[in-house]
Amino acid sequence: MSADPTCTFCRIIAGELPASTVAEDDAVIAFMDINPVTAGHLLVVPKEHHARIATIPGEIIARMMLVGRQLTAALRASPIRTEGVNLFLADGAAAGQEVMHTHLHVIPRWAGDGFRIGRVGRPAPSRDELDRLATTIRGATVE
Amino acid sequence: MSADPTCTFCRIIAGELPASTVAEDDAVIAFMDINPVTAGHLLVVPKEHHARIATIPGEIIARMMLVGRQLTAALRASPIRTEGVNLFLADGAAAGQEVMHTHLHVIPRWAGDGFRIGRVGRPAPSRDELDRLATTIRGATVE
Repeated sequence: MSADPTCTFCRIIAGELPASTVAEDDAVIAFMDINPVTAGHLLVVPKEHHARIATIPGEIIARMMLVGRQLTAALRASPIRTEGVNLFLADGAAAGQEVMHTHLHVIPRWAGDGFRIGRVGRPAPSRDELDRLATTIRGATVE
Repeated sequence: MSADPTCTFCRIIAGELPASTVAEDDAVIAFMDINPVTAGHLLVVPKEHHARIATIPGEIIARMMLVGRQLTAALRASPIRTEGVNLFLADGAAAGQEVMHTHLHVIPRWAGDGFRIGRVGRPAPSRDELDRLATTIRGATVE
């Protein structure tokens, strides 16, 4: 299994750095984010080192999502305040990825939790513009 | 296949409302978000109506993630500005879910795109606190 000895998550997986682990199987591990957006914020991390999602085997990225869904249910069933949950993955620094070992955030949410997702306002695009974008993306579809 | 005649996404899937479709298979459809965070913002939507992720069959939620990853690659390969990509799912209104038919956002990102994700500052929790939270969530694990 590939590992990067300079990677914080690989070092957690190797047992060299501490983590507060919630779930673990052959392919993935889930532990508390040390800089949580809200109390209960978890990360689902593949054990193999992949900087980006592009190189992760399909069954492992699928497994990350299934574990994320399982942890969503666990948070909702727990006493931790959870009125909603965000699953969030940042692929690349421009998307907010901070540790360059792919990971899925599982974030319990509640009204007024202080977590903000938003954008600078701009007018909604026309259907023609959306159709042009769709055609562009279809033309670039890979895999 | 379950559908809700009052649901916007079910109506798109039934062909009753327009959408700029990028990909489609038996289980999921992907189309342009009509209120995009950035140009190229896509939604991956299961064809079955499920308000929340809890009730989606595992193979379908896994498929949503695989299609999200495939579209991430397509965006990166396209001329649409894509320095990074966010995969984002809101489960419940408190998490920002607006259409009550589960969907995965695929959002192209670039430095200075105006999309903001953040939180009200608070001190990082201690390891003891993280361990207590992990124990709480482990105790609530369901499925």
